[in-house]
Amino acid sequence: MQIPFETLRWIAPACLRLLDQTRLPGETAYIDCIDEHMVWDAIKRLAVRGAPAIGVAAAYGAYLSIARRDDDVDTLYATLHAACDHLATSRPTAVNLFWALERIRRVPPSPDTPGEGRGEGSSDDFKRRVLEECHRIAREDAACCQKIGEHGLQVLLDLKKPQPLHILTHCNAGALAASGIGTALAPIYVGHERGVKFELFADETRPLLQGARLTAYELQQAGIPVTVLCDNMAASLMSAGKIDAILVGADRIAGNGDTANKIGTLGLAIMAKHFGVPFFVAAPTSTIDMKIRDGSQIPIEHREATEVTPRSLKGVQVYNPAFDVTPAALIGGWITELGRWRPGP
Amino acid sequence: MQIPFETLRWIAPACLRLLDQTRLPGETAYIDCIDEHMVWDAIKRLAVRGAPAIGVAAAYGAYLSIARRDDDVDTLYATLHAACDHLATSRPTAVNLFWALERIRRVPPSPDTPGEGRGEGSSDDFKRRVLEECHRIAREDAACCQKIGEHGLQVLLDLKKPQPLHILTHCNAGALAASGIGTALAPIYVGHERGVKFELFADETRPLLQGARLTAYELQQAGIPVTVLCDNMAASLMSAGKIDAILVGADRIAGNGDTANKIGTLGLAIMAKHFGVPFFVAAPTSTIDMKIRDGSQIPIEHREATEVTPRSLKGVQVYNPAFDVTPAALIGGWITELGRWRPGP
Repeated sequence: MQIPFETLRWIAPACLRLLDQTRLPGETAYIDCIDEHMVWDAIKRLAVRGAPAIGVAAAYGAYLSIARRDDDVDTLYATLHAACDHLATSRPTAVNLFWALERIRRVPPSPDTPGEGRGEGSSDDFKRRVLEECHRIAREDAACCQKIGEHGLQVLLDLKKPQPLHILTHCNAGALAASGIGTALAPIYVGHERGVKFELFADETRPLLQGARLTAYELQQAGIPVTVLCDNMAASLMSAGKIDAILVGADRIAGNGDTANKIGTLGLAIMAKHFGVPFFVAAPTSTIDMKIRDGSQIPIEHREATEVTPRSLKGVQVYNPAFDVTPAALIGGWITELGRWRPGP
Repeated sequence: MQIPFETLRWIAPACLRLLDQTRLPGETAYIDCIDEHMVWDAIKRLAVRGAPAIGVAAAYGAYLSIARRDDDVDTLYATLHAACDHLATSRPTAVNLFWALERIRRVPPSPDTPGEGRGEGSSDDFKRRVLEECHRIAREDAACCQKIGEHGLQVLLDLKKPQPLHILTHCNAGALAASGIGTALAPIYVGHERGVKFELFADETRPLLQGARLTAYELQQAGIPVTVLCDNMAASLMSAGKIDAILVGADRIAGNGDTANKIGTLGLAIMAKHFGVPFFVAAPTSTIDMKIRDGSQIPIEHREATEVTPRSLKGVQVYNPAFDVTPAALIGGWITELGRWRPGP
């Protein structure tokens, strides 16, 4: 599947070009990040978003902290780790951020296997290995997306529903949320390429409208029919029998399967259960956080009131959590790059 | 309870002044309707909205069609009935509209009881009796609101929850939706006046934000603490145990109790059941349509795509029903001016 835009692109020797998603679909503008602060800011204000994409961007952001420095290896190593600490403060919920930064942290100051290349143990060698790890994270992410697409398509076809398949999704878990073809939308792209017919329904996803702005945009670019609805219209669609399955992404999955995803996912899952609509989460295994037992331990980001009510009335409070946690019992399945994942005991 | 704004006001001899709710909360502007076409337009574009208020406005609108005419009684009668036909096309779902127009249609060209007053059977007499029926509809609506408030407050107090009571509401079923203190908000206003403590949570109610714009506005004007949330955040609040009860209005209630209300109500009711949160509908009995057996017979208005996506992408469809139907089984109770209503067999 050829995606007609680039969510993230590395420009050698030291620039991360990000599609500014806050300006889609009206404008196709890019941000050239040349240091870790620009990446932090882009993640914070959602210019780049989506759990997998945040991980990839953060990794490159960490590398940018050392890319232009002439210091010795120990200093570079300390700088890199400080940048990882800083980047980890950008957003709290998506675990892919911490997972990717952890991979960067684990790049040793000296190569594990001596004799691997020129100038081993040197500053340049360290930088080269960190950048390689960034590229590897990005490549692996793209490969994960493709595999999630393959497995997810099989799950959808196994439903044995007539085509076109009517799929509802929430927020954006597509190519704009990852290095590759996305997570929840990956099965759609893989199927579309193979001639499977789909009709997609995209919750607009208040307050920042990632569904109306981003999911609608990328599906339309890909030539897949898409209908936008307000979040509160999903039950109406389901009650009319118009939805065959719901596919969403994830920002963090606890060991027991409880899943944090964009605010509104919990309500959708409850409605899906009520109407008997199959409900699936699609995510790379890097989204699974085995360190936490259940969803109550997932930190939930609360964002600015002005995202909800720009013209807030004086004295009116705003509740604006960016995520909610869907209990494992409401989820029909988790689709990862390894196939169906099953929560532990 | 003194409401510091006027949703509808009759200005003698022939003007219906409507608060233009499309401009709230930023601007307090009024529309002086001097004929039935202006009222039709105000209802259509939601300058006046809320099932009870639509009924009252339509009645006055019908009267405006004859107010300035010097015709004989038969001509006035025909003109009035034609205006009723026209006004009935403004919006399809709220039954109060048809109910109020039916009351106007039933005003006979001659008084039932001869000798009632000067010029009986004359044009002026007919006009006077039509206008009196309008005033009666408005007064009765205000009285209904007060009684719904009394009964509803008792229902809330019977929950035996500690104060402040945390009440979630959807759309606007307050003083802006009626001649009086509203329906779903009436118990709050009556309780507030008696010293009962509340904390209200208002779904913003996409696409037209009646919750964020209107409910937040009127509760803030009344000095009642209110928090606005996006529609997709309600499940998060409920899962955190922060909601004691949900109160909504209604646009039409079928004989079996199935209830049409603002889009999103169905989803809320499903979530409320899932979390064990009491869910109540508050409405005058004029909202009950005994002519229809169940909710499948309630016509649902679908509105313009541009309400949802003003910057719609080319080729992207929009699903924009203004209402959904909540099955009676999901509703914990219907609060009317006569107390708790129970659907028939």
